[in-house]
Amino acid sequence: MTTPKTNFLTMCLRGTSQVFFMENALTGALFFVAMAFASHVSGVWATTMGAAVGIVVSTATACLLDLDDESIGQGLYGFNGILVGAALPTFIAASPQLWGYVVVGAAASTVFTAAFSAVLTKSWGIPGSTGPFVLTGWLMVAGAYSFGGLDVTGDSPRLPTLTQAHATDIPHAIDLLHIFFRNIGQVYLLGSWVSGAIILLGIFIASVRAGVAVVAGSAIATAVSIAMGASPAAIHAGLYGYSAVLTALALGVIFLRPSVRVAIYAALGTVMTVFVQGALDIMVAPVGVPSFTAPYVLTMYLFIAPRRLIAPHPHQPVADHAIADGKATGR
Amino acid sequence: MTTPKTNFLTMCLRGTSQVFFMENALTGALFFVAMAFASHVSGVWATTMGAAVGIVVSTATACLLDLDDESIGQGLYGFNGILVGAALPTFIAASPQLWGYVVVGAAASTVFTAAFSAVLTKSWGIPGSTGPFVLTGWLMVAGAYSFGGLDVTGDSPRLPTLTQAHATDIPHAIDLLHIFFRNIGQVYLLGSWVSGAIILLGIFIASVRAGVAVVAGSAIATAVSIAMGASPAAIHAGLYGYSAVLTALALGVIFLRPSVRVAIYAALGTVMTVFVQGALDIMVAPVGVPSFTAPYVLTMYLFIAPRRLIAPHPHQPVADHAIADGKATGR
Amino acid sequence: MTTPKTNFLTMCLRGTSQVFFMENALTGALFFVAMAFASHVSGVWATTMGAAVGIVVSTATACLLDLDDESIGQGLYGFNGILVGAALPTFIAASPQLWGYVVVGAAASTVFTAAFSAVLTKSWGIPGSTGPFVLTGWLMVAGAYSFGGLDVTGDSPRLPTLTQAHATDIPHAIDLLHIFFRNIGQVYLLGSWVSGAIILLGIFIASVRAGVAVVAGSAIATAVSIAMGASPAAIHAGLYGYSAVLTALALGVIFLRPSVRVAIYAALGTVMTVFVQGALDIMVAPVGVPSFTAPYVLTMYLFIAPRRLIAPHPHQPVADHAIADGKATGR
Repeated sequence: MTTPKTNFLTMCLRGTSQVFFMENALTGALFFVAMAFASHVSGVWATTMGAAVGIVVSTATACLLDLDDESIGQGLYGFNGILVGAALPTFIAASPQLWGYVVVGAAASTVFTAAFSAVLTKSWGIPGSTGPFVLTGWLMVAGAYSFGGLDVTGDSPRLPTLTQAHATDIPHAIDLLHIFFRNIGQVYLLGSWVSGAIILLGIFIASVRAGVAVVAGSAIATAVSIAMGASPAAIHAGLYGYSAVLTALALGVIFLRPSVRVAIYAALGTVMTVFVQGALDIMVAPVGVPSFTAPYVLTMYLFIAPRRLIAPHPHQPVADHAIADGKATGR
Repeated sequence: MTTPKTNFLTMCLRGTSQVFFMENALTGALFFVAMAFASHVSGVWATTMGAAVGIVVSTATACLLDLDDESIGQGLYGFNGILVGAALPTFIAASPQLWGYVVVGAAASTVFTAAFSAVLTKSWGIPGSTGPFVLTGWLMVAGAYSFGGLDVTGDSPRLPTLTQAHATDIPHAIDLLHIFFRNIGQVYLLGSWVSGAIILLGIFIASVRAGVAVVAGSAIATAVSIAMGASPAAIHAGLYGYSAVLTALALGVIFLRPSVRVAIYAALGTVMTVFVQGALDIMVAPVGVPSFTAPYVLTMYLFIAPRRLIAPHPHQPVADHAIADGKATGR
Repeated sequence: MTTPKTNFLTMCLRGTSQVFFMENALTGALFFVAMAFASHVSGVWATTMGAAVGIVVSTATACLLDLDDESIGQGLYGFNGILVGAALPTFIAASPQLWGYVVVGAAASTVFTAAFSAVLTKSWGIPGSTGPFVLTGWLMVAGAYSFGGLDVTGDSPRLPTLTQAHATDIPHAIDLLHIFFRNIGQVYLLGSWVSGAIILLGIFIASVRAGVAVVAGSAIATAVSIAMGASPAAIHAGLYGYSAVLTALALGVIFLRPSVRVAIYAALGTVMTVFVQGALDIMVAPVGVPSFTAPYVLTMYLFIAPRRLIAPHPHQPVADHAIADGKATGR
């Protein structure tokens, strides 16, 4: 059953119907009527707006990543994004950061959908279904407790103590420099900014390109964590940067062939790593352990898994030199 | 080493010995002596009775699913079930609901054993061993905190606050109708029963068969959650139904070819989804996130994974049209 | 790009640089300078010493397991071990038990690195990266709360109540005998030592070799749990032994062909299972369920996964009779 390439609105409405496994734009339109009716009754339109943003961003992300046309046309890269877009405003109060969160979450849900497909469906015929939505939703609602710019409001299980807004003052230049280097040193659990600088020197000695990626990763993590209102103490200790630094390096240089497209992909992964850091810090707290590099590990696994699904551009093959030449055993 | 098809009692005793990797009916009989001795000393016979129910139900389920004869004969589909049957009465007080719980849990453990085999053993040569017991046991003990008909009694880690029995009054007909539609609307996180009705209309427009499965799933979830004594507020909000609706649709119509046998399989999965809903609501509470559709996702993955192990009847191939024709990328 | 076999120090320094994906001994040496500088500033040298122990033990373990020479030479089996070695003294106070913990953890991290490679990299091209460190670190920091010989000191998330030292009196001989048999009976959740003895009899009837492995597993678990200062009540109930008994049996006799080398491998796995028991008891407590046999299941999966990477000696093939002849479906 081939599905001809179709217009963007039809793709989005089919994706809306795919939450119930249907591929029918009219059904999708009725689902939007159902959402609008509920918003009309409750007076809260953020959920319906979030759903619209989610389906558009996730479907557009699939197009930008050149994922397979037939699946995109059937709406199969959109139904997780629409659920992310509907769920986040249901559990988090509206704010500028929320909308940035919805956009990044919906884009990431498309990557996760491709990852689940590459792993579960390819190996065992298990459909990913709404698994990517569950994963994205858990990470982003949990992460919201870590960020002062986001306020968890749902009456579902809610942590009582962590929702106060953090001060979001921008640190002084010298503080920013210390944060920048501590983000690197903390990969080795080192709180000294000088140690971070020595490590960066060691990286540049081995590879200038790797050094540049580390610099970019540390800068992105600092900006995003401050903008989201993360704990100033954690930011200053470099605890929001060490995982992001590794993601920027792994996705931008090591495991994918560097290009403009890959740089944007790596930047999305790096931003997502900061959010996942906020989430895992909350998620592991009940068992009394630190996050270690889990935010990097989880994000990198999910962003690398769909590698073979992401169609290389004719002259920009998304290759995998590190793995291809046998260097990446277990790395 | 071929194992001739043998009588049911021998299969069960071999399964009993397989907990220690043995395949010896006499050894299995001695293990039952050990259990009976412990029951005699403690005066609690529910554990030994549970073990007997567990080994019988799990082995019988393997036969009904036409799983491979040699493994059944060796007792390899029974040792997880016997542990489920022994463990649940160890940690949950005897009640009518407990015995229903043991039967469903033992049957599910056979499906999970087949799933672990299809994933771990087939791909990497890792034996599933008692992994399916651990998963089933965790889900069902955690779920017991959500159901007023079950009382967690073990002196092991026990949650202090959630064990009070819920009122199990059967709602009025009009309430049941609202629950029925909210179970559908909550897939989109909508609490309005009218929205649920609009969504059901949209599904029927796309596929009558899918609509019927959704209706059945919502009805089963309502009946099971009331019978188990789940929180009336959660039942009324439709929170016990949205995952079950998706499981009924996915297993009954979308990913397996519809037949009487598949309908029974889907019904088992739908009941299990209600139990998993109770479990995951407890399990994710410490990190302050909602369950989202995870009860459906987890149950569906486990019930779909063994698809290729479940022998199709000669004229009823258990096919996978949705995946076979390429429609299910990531769904 | 072939890497000639090189001296052990170079391997270790390359492994140090591999934390940032580099393969450069000079870079690795600079990273040690960075660690030493941080230790100099803080006055705490245990972290740098731990890193040194971690890289040496993990790299040496890879050599002893005959993992592939090229990856060892590139440092790919060392970067998880160095992180384990740096992390444990960062979060746990120095003590004799800590250093034993670091050695076992670093050795296990090499096994886990091989397991991640056999699963993630082989099937999907996903690099394991620092995933094995995260897993090992989580298990061992969580486990530290269960052992009186280890004191969690990090100012990161720390559980408030469980760090008091347990009495580590060595039980009397008759108590040791009861513990020995209860370790076996608890596989079936039986607290009676007589039941454990009956079960052991049943195992010896089926297989003398299996009986010997069970005896060894129970003895190791008793010694390790007492030495680590685990809860005396839990030790006496047999709760530290039932998973270790299964690991000793599974790794030593059932899934690997018995040999001296396999016996040592199984002993490492059995010791690690005791640590994982301590960890999972803490990790599942927030959701109110027992660990069941999860410590065995998790450890065994990780120790079996790399089976095909572990080069068999010419006359001692590490075979898998149980799986090879089709007996291990789902076991």
